[in-house]
Amino acid sequence: MSDPNVNRQWLLANRPPGWPSESDFELVETPVPEPAEGQFLVRNLWVSVDPYMRGRMRDVKSYVPPTALGAVMGGESVARVTASRHPDYAEGEIVVGPFAWQDYALSDGQGARKVDPKLAPISTAVGALGMPGMTAYFGLLDVCGPKEGETVLVSGAAGAVGSLVGQIAKIKGCRAVGIAGSQQKVDWITGELGFDAAFNYKTVAAEDYSDAIGELCPDGVDCYFDNVGGPISDAVFPRYNVHGRMAICGQISLYNDEDQQPAPRPYWFILRQQLTVRGFLVFQFLKRYPEGLREMAQWIGEGSIKFRETVAEGLENTPAAFIGMMRGENIGKQLVRVAPQ
Amino acid sequence: MSDPNVNRQWLLANRPPGWPSESDFELVETPVPEPAEGQFLVRNLWVSVDPYMRGRMRDVKSYVPPTALGAVMGGESVARVTASRHPDYAEGEIVVGPFAWQDYALSDGQGARKVDPKLAPISTAVGALGMPGMTAYFGLLDVCGPKEGETVLVSGAAGAVGSLVGQIAKIKGCRAVGIAGSQQKVDWITGELGFDAAFNYKTVAAEDYSDAIGELCPDGVDCYFDNVGGPISDAVFPRYNVHGRMAICGQISLYNDEDQQPAPRPYWFILRQQLTVRGFLVFQFLKRYPEGLREMAQWIGEGSIKFRETVAEGLENTPAAFIGMMRGENIGKQLVRVAPQ
Repeated sequence: MSDPNVNRQWLLANRPPGWPSESDFELVETPVPEPAEGQFLVRNLWVSVDPYMRGRMRDVKSYVPPTALGAVMGGESVARVTASRHPDYAEGEIVVGPFAWQDYALSDGQGARKVDPKLAPISTAVGALGMPGMTAYFGLLDVCGPKEGETVLVSGAAGAVGSLVGQIAKIKGCRAVGIAGSQQKVDWITGELGFDAAFNYKTVAAEDYSDAIGELCPDGVDCYFDNVGGPISDAVFPRYNVHGRMAICGQISLYNDEDQQPAPRPYWFILRQQLTVRGFLVFQFLKRYPEGLREMAQWIGEGSIKFRETVAEGLENTPAAFIGMMRGENIGKQLVRVAPQ
Repeated sequence: MSDPNVNRQWLLANRPPGWPSESDFELVETPVPEPAEGQFLVRNLWVSVDPYMRGRMRDVKSYVPPTALGAVMGGESVARVTASRHPDYAEGEIVVGPFAWQDYALSDGQGARKVDPKLAPISTAVGALGMPGMTAYFGLLDVCGPKEGETVLVSGAAGAVGSLVGQIAKIKGCRAVGIAGSQQKVDWITGELGFDAAFNYKTVAAEDYSDAIGELCPDGVDCYFDNVGGPISDAVFPRYNVHGRMAICGQISLYNDEDQQPAPRPYWFILRQQLTVRGFLVFQFLKRYPEGLREMAQWIGEGSIKFRETVAEGLENTPAAFIGMMRGENIGKQLVRVAPQ
């Protein structure tokens, strides 16, 4: 176990142009801080690593502010309050918030919320009952707006978001089809999660993606929930039905690619099929989180939504878990267990 | 003048892969038909040539059915009823409908509507008060949804649709910026139509389009109404404001291009700026045409919408007018005057 008087922190050391490596982060030890009036101190329990964090490593315009070089890598964690001078948070409470890649964090409550440990395992506060869950819920239901009987295709289908998207689609009476990166993932989403069909894109040549999609979506694609971008998304365009909808949630296939390859333009398909293509960030639905959390919690309680976690042990393994997640080594939500609950 | 007993017809003779030429059409003379019970005969007065007709020449899946080889080229015309055995249409009435590239047409009323000659010049029934007008009206107001004070960018800005889009944007209190293909067009839309700014893309290198757009849209682009596609549309992506909207109406720059060039993928911009990209066909608004026609007619009557026509004389010049329109030789609406009103 770590020294209770030491706060280990992962700092951003470099802004790598392509794939990051562990040496782009630096582990330092600092004293555990003490909360001032209006603050509380948390002990991180579960640190989340998410695709969007790749954006924090760049100093370019994006929807997340970059992490400064030499600063602690930003991110969300589930944590326990260990000391509090804040009226709304008491020692021992479980909270989720922007507590970053470190053992301990100070907070004034900004961006934090309490977690009810009776509702579901607390780690879901950065998973199915957190940002990824809300992304799947609002991205599918609001941005795509699937109707009963329609076909919903999702890429990154065994990831934290994609695995939920397909299950919500099933709850809404749709055909759910997944694209994932291993046979194990395909087996999990079709066998355990109830997807109607899926394929492992790594066993298919890029020029055959469109045929593979056509085979699994014999009635065409009504909604495509895109987590990956690149050639997979290109291949969906010929498969859309009239008035099809594409929700762009992530582009993980491109986040580490400095030389973006050109691709066929999609606009003729968008025009001919009268498609709607929308990019969205889950933050735009922030005010409606209570609605999304309530419904997701109910579905989890009923067993109609299942989730899975891939757990790395120890804060020291956070960069490795982050890089592995971008390589698709996780199934479901990738977490780092920083301290025992 | 043409022989009143002869119906000259332009047949589709070839399906050219790239740019069509006049030899892809064949002019034949047939007897003028006689209406059966429930039909009426029209004399075409104004034949419309429109970009979408390029699609009729191809035997591929599209939103318009292809014209069969050897059949009369389909299209809309303004015409006078010269004989009628239809209860709703009387000799002498002016009608607009799918009367094709010919002197005379039989109709059972399908797709036809009467034109009120007191409202505006009857040629507007295939222009500002016809399909192009409805395309501009619903495409801008419904698909883009511009708000007062926003910037509306339109390509093909001196064409039948684009020239109306900018003027409607002005009526709604927006900044209207146009992209057009000659200095004369730029002068017309900024000088006479009230666009706030415009540039001639033919005087700008493709890699500088984005800078040119940025200069004329200093507050960014909120709505982009796309008539042309290709490198111009690519160049707009870095200029969108958050929650920007792109309405894809046409892709004329690509209609004669067999080897579609690859281009940078737009999805990262769509995600980062939370854009909505929608393709639309005006037919989806068919039930709301009366509303659009009423408001457009009012604006024309008030002088807040101006229009211009480029007129080719004689049915024999229809293919040349069609090809010239695709080359951008027209300003405003391209028409063929087939017979005197």
